[in-house]
Amino acid sequence: MLPGVGVFGTGSTARVLVPLLKAEGFEVHAVWGKSEEEAGCLAKELGIPFHTSRSDDVLLHQDVDLVCIYIPPSMTRQIAVKALGIGKNVLCEKAATAVDSFKMVTAARYYPQLLSIMGNTLRFLPAFAAMRQLLVERYVGEMQVCDVRVYGPSLLDQAYGWTCEELMGGGGLHTVGSSVIDLLSYLTGERAHRVHGLLRTFVQQNGLIRGIRRVTSDDFCFFQMLMGGTGSRSGGVCCTVTLNFNMPGSFVHEVMVVGSAGRLVARGTELYGQRNGSKSEELLLGDSGWVGPEVKEMPLPHLQGLSSMVKALRESFQAHEERRSWARGPVAMAPTFEDGLYVQTVVEAVKRSSCSGEWECVEIMSQEPDPNHNLCEALQRNKN
Amino acid sequence: MLPGVGVFGTGSTARVLVPLLKAEGFEVHAVWGKSEEEAGCLAKELGIPFHTSRSDDVLLHQDVDLVCIYIPPSMTRQIAVKALGIGKNVLCEKAATAVDSFKMVTAARYYPQLLSIMGNTLRFLPAFAAMRQLLVERYVGEMQVCDVRVYGPSLLDQAYGWTCEELMGGGGLHTVGSSVIDLLSYLTGERAHRVHGLLRTFVQQNGLIRGIRRVTSDDFCFFQMLMGGTGSRSGGVCCTVTLNFNMPGSFVHEVMVVGSAGRLVARGTELYGQRNGSKSEELLLGDSGWVGPEVKEMPLPHLQGLSSMVKALRESFQAHEERRSWARGPVAMAPTFEDGLYVQTVVEAVKRSSCSGEWECVEIMSQEPDPNHNLCEALQRNKN
Repeated sequence: MLPGVGVFGTGSTARVLVPLLKAEGFEVHAVWGKSEEEAGCLAKELGIPFHTSRSDDVLLHQDVDLVCIYIPPSMTRQIAVKALGIGKNVLCEKAATAVDSFKMVTAARYYPQLLSIMGNTLRFLPAFAAMRQLLVERYVGEMQVCDVRVYGPSLLDQAYGWTCEELMGGGGLHTVGSSVIDLLSYLTGERAHRVHGLLRTFVQQNGLIRGIRRVTSDDFCFFQMLMGGTGSRSGGVCCTVTLNFNMPGSFVHEVMVVGSAGRLVARGTELYGQRNGSKSEELLLGDSGWVGPEVKEMPLPHLQGLSSMVKALRESFQAHEERRSWARGPVAMAPTFEDGLYVQTVVEAVKRSSCSGEWECVEIMSQEPDPNHNLCEALQRNKN
Repeated sequence: MLPGVGVFGTGSTARVLVPLLKAEGFEVHAVWGKSEEEAGCLAKELGIPFHTSRSDDVLLHQDVDLVCIYIPPSMTRQIAVKALGIGKNVLCEKAATAVDSFKMVTAARYYPQLLSIMGNTLRFLPAFAAMRQLLVERYVGEMQVCDVRVYGPSLLDQAYGWTCEELMGGGGLHTVGSSVIDLLSYLTGERAHRVHGLLRTFVQQNGLIRGIRRVTSDDFCFFQMLMGGTGSRSGGVCCTVTLNFNMPGSFVHEVMVVGSAGRLVARGTELYGQRNGSKSEELLLGDSGWVGPEVKEMPLPHLQGLSSMVKALRESFQAHEERRSWARGPVAMAPTFEDGLYVQTVVEAVKRSSCSGEWECVEIMSQEPDPNHNLCEALQRNKN
C-alpha cells in the first residue's frame, strides 16, 4: 500500500515531483512553503488538500508517511532529522554542510527501518543504470578516465537568495557538481580520495543582483578526483569534471568513461559505446521519448531520473501491505544519507582546494565536530 | 622568387610536407634521414634529387635556402641553430627542452633577417584564424573560459623510440599539448602565468613494447592554465585542456571559448558560434572540403593547417626577387622561436605540477642556465 506524502518546498522540483507522485498513485496530503501564500498557491495549483508554513503541521500530519524535502540546503538537515525522529520515511535534497550531512547520517543510522534516501536522481536514469551494468561487465575493460561536462544557463534564482550565496549551498559545484560526484562513485564503484579544483564566479552582478549585493557562488567549476586506491602513481580512475553555467541557450550533459578496452558516453539521456577496434560508436540506449512535462529549470536527465525514482519508490512501497513499510530491492540503487555525507565532503574538499591551490584529501567525518568549530571555520572562510 | 628547400626527417609530417611544398611551387632539393636507406627511400618516393644521412650535406647544399626540420625533438635544436648560423631560413618542430628552446631563441635573435618559425600549424587553420578575429571583435564579450579536448588513438610509434620516452619529448602533452598551448596564447592574446596538471601513462606496455621496456610518456594529460594578469582572484581567462590518447578509432579536436556575451567552438576544422540570447548555434565557417591526401597519423586540423602554412610561406617568399628574402606579412601569425620557448616552458611547468601536485608558475628563461644544471636536473628527475 502506498504511503501518504507530505512535500516541503514550492520550487521547481517540488512542482514537478507532485504530478509524478500522483501519476504513480501516491496521494499528496500536505505541502509546506516558506510563506502561507507560496504554500497556498502551490496547493491550489496542484490540488493538494492541506498547506502550511509551519513545518510541524506537515511532519505530524497523520496521513503523511513519506516526507519529500526540496528546500534550500541550509534548512534541509533540520526537517530531515526531525521527520525521521517522528517516524516518517524521508526523501530529501542535499544539506548545506558536511556537519549537517553527518547529523542526517546519525539520524538515518538510528532509524534503519525508515527509508532515508538522497534525491540525486541521476542514478535512476536508465542510461546511467545501463552504463553501470556495462562497466561491471567490463565493456570498457579496466576503467581509466571519467570525463564529465555539464554546460548550461545560469543557476541563479530571479531574486537574490541562497542560490547566490556560496555559504548557503548555492553554486554549480554544490547544486550540480553534487549529483555528478554521486553519479561517478555509483558508476565506478569507488570513492574519491584526493581532489583538486578551481571555482570561479564570472558573473558577480546582473540586472537583478546589484548594488552592494554580489554573487559568491560559483558559475564555473572544474575539478579532478582520484578514485579508489591510494597506492601506485598511475593506479585508480581519474575523474575530470567541468561545470559551466555561463552558457545561456545551451544544455550539455555528457558523461564519458574511458577504459583499456573501449569507452561509454552518456549524452543527455542517451548511451553510446565504442569498443577498441570497432570502427564507430554504437547507440546502446536511445532516448525513451519523454512524455512528461518539460521543465525549463530542470534538465532532461534529472527530470527523467526523478520520474524513474518515483516509479522505484512506488514499487518499493507497493510490495508491502503496511503504509509505512517498504522493500529495499527497488530502491537499492538510491543514494543513502551516507552517500550524501560523502558527496558533501568531496564538495567541501574541492572548495578547499580552490582556495589552497593544492590537492586535498577526502576525509569522511566519523564523529561530530565541536559545535564551536563550525562557527570558527565559517568566520575563517569569510576572511579569505 | 621561391627558395630551394631542404627537408630534415622522413616521418609522416615530412612525407606530407614535401608534396604540399611542391604543389605551391617550391623545389625540394635535398632530404636528410637518420640512415642512408631511410633518406634514399623517401627521396625516391617523392622525387627528391639528393639524399643523405649527414646533416651538413643538406645545410651546406647550395640550392637550399629554406630548411624544414621534422625530426625527433632531442635533435631539433642542433640542426636549427646550425642552419641559422649558415644563413638559412628555418621552419622547425619543437625542441625537447626549454634549454634547447632558449638556444634556438638566441640564434633567432642573432639572425633577425632570417625566417625562423615553429611548425605549429593550428594557427594557420582558417577556423582558428577566424576564431581569433571574432574574439578580437568581442563576439564572446569578455573571455572567461577556454576548454579544449583532444581525443585520439595512441601516439606511440610502431617500434620503441622517442615517442615512448618522456625525457626525449614523447607523450601527449609534449606532442599535442604544445600545439594547444600555442593556439590558446594565439587565440586569447595572453600567456599562462600559472598552470596545474596531471599526467598519466595508462598503457605502459603493449604488443610491441614489452619485456624490460616501458612507456614513460603520457597517454592522458589534463591541465589548467590561468592566463594573463596575476592580479585579482577571478581575473584572467581559465583554460582547461584534456588530452586522451587511449581512444582508438576516434578523433575529437574541440576548442571552445566561452565569454560574457556568447561562445565560439571549433570542432575539427569547422567553427560554430552562439551569442547569448540566440536560440541555437550558427555555423560560422564550414569545412572547406579537404582535397589533399588523407594521412592516418595526422589529424585533419593539423593537416589543413600545414597546407595553409605552406601557402603563407609561398606568399612570403614570392613577394621578393631574391631567393632568400621574404616578407613578414603573410607569416606574421606564425609562431616564433620565442613562442616555442614559451610553449616549452609551459609544458615543463605542467610536468612539474603533475609531480608536485601544486600550481606551478610559468617563468620564461631569460639567460642560459649553467650547463651542468641540466644534467643535475635530468638525474634528479630520474630519481623520482
